[in-house]
Amino acid sequence: MANSPSGDSAIDRVVRVLETFTIDRTVQTASEIGRRARLPSSTAHRLVDGLIEAGLLERDDEHRVRLGMRLWELALRGSHALRLRQAALPHMERVQARIREHTQLAVLEQDSALFLERLSHPDAGANITRIAGRLPLHASSSGLVLLAFAPEELRERVLAAPLAQVAKETVTDAAALRRLLAEVRRTGVAVAPGSIEAVSTGIAVAVRDPRGEVIAALSVVLPRDAPTEQAVTELVRAARGIRSSLSADLR
Amino acid sequence: MANSPSGDSAIDRVVRVLETFTIDRTVQTASEIGRRARLPSSTAHRLVDGLIEAGLLERDDEHRVRLGMRLWELALRGSHALRLRQAALPHMERVQARIREHTQLAVLEQDSALFLERLSHPDAGANITRIAGRLPLHASSSGLVLLAFAPEELRERVLAAPLAQVAKETVTDAAALRRLLAEVRRTGVAVAPGSIEAVSTGIAVAVRDPRGEVIAALSVVLPRDAPTEQAVTELVRAARGIRSSLSADLR
Repeated sequence: MANSPSGDSAIDRVVRVLETFTIDRTVQTASEIGRRARLPSSTAHRLVDGLIEAGLLERDDEHRVRLGMRLWELALRGSHALRLRQAALPHMERVQARIREHTQLAVLEQDSALFLERLSHPDAGANITRIAGRLPLHASSSGLVLLAFAPEELRERVLAAPLAQVAKETVTDAAALRRLLAEVRRTGVAVAPGSIEAVSTGIAVAVRDPRGEVIAALSVVLPRDAPTEQAVTELVRAARGIRSSLSADLR
Repeated sequence: MANSPSGDSAIDRVVRVLETFTIDRTVQTASEIGRRARLPSSTAHRLVDGLIEAGLLERDDEHRVRLGMRLWELALRGSHALRLRQAALPHMERVQARIREHTQLAVLEQDSALFLERLSHPDAGANITRIAGRLPLHASSSGLVLLAFAPEELRERVLAAPLAQVAKETVTDAAALRRLLAEVRRTGVAVAPGSIEAVSTGIAVAVRDPRGEVIAALSVVLPRDAPTEQAVTELVRAARGIRSSLSADLR
């Protein structure tokens, strides 16, 4: 970073370093970080040392580098994601206790569904979602809810772009997706059988803030052909509960 | 940051900006951030703009600044804090369902107990801890467990420094604290009546990783004079469960 005259560039480099850490790659050497962040080796080592000094990265017992607990603290402490998740958690626990399947909370972020929370059930089936993981808007039940209530400009942009075939049953035809989204806007519920994985059906409902704006999607993942009625009922009740909890927060 | 020739300084400024966000201060203007981060106004505005550009900060509808969802994602996605928390959550839920009081998970971070997770019970009493919040090591039950099993150098440093009187019953005498920590090392359990708040008793146990190292403290907060036996039993069982879940993760 010594040869970076502008602040933006320094921020970009920090972001590029942080981006090399993923759900499946939580420890790396400084050299690996440099290569993956496309930074010259000396720059990468200096930058990693600086980030360790600040606590944003840490070294483990084997001298490898991982994300720092201080970064976790700074990112969460004042975060509205944490507030939403705290308001949602008791309601998610109730859904999970009754439906006994994976229960997720997602928000719209940079044209994806970003998962803020996931409660897993030991008896539940496959589930591709992970906390801080993403799924495409058009392919996941959560994404369909978020896309249905997104600003029109974003919806049109997604509809105009190629729609990836995540699984055999993913809706990839723009006209069909447009009709589906109109239906989700009417009902507030998205049911997506086999659109992410052939063996499961995602069911998501809209979560609204006290002003009535859709701010998140709450979902469960059921086995492919399980009945959906009870899950929809529980999700709708939980979404109302989250809205009430958020109102109580404001008081 | 334009007048910052060194990378370390750029990182420091970013950290100083992020530090201005707290549990009770989640939105600020760029000017407030600059003042609280002790940065010149023009520097603060440029830095905030750069952080918004990178997604680490966001503007809300009223043009105020808050922590970005992208920061949340980058901090959590590859984080071992998240892995520990995910391994612990089902076991914490069981403790909470049986004891029906607040249940917390804390780690040692920069000479404090940093709380990674907290499950609240609607019927439960007062509780000062919050996710991404901290408590002093000598005053909280979680902190006593973490301090008892910390490297000797850290323990001696804490014992040599003044011990803050957080509440009337906080142990502030170094010799008494030393005896207490030896007892916690023997039993793996810390019971701290009234040491944070006069109305509650914190009870914490050590959570060990598969190699046997203490990596966290699991605690509940009971009313001041409630019996503690059942809570200790449940916490010890949960700590064993977390250790098993972490072993399963490694396979």
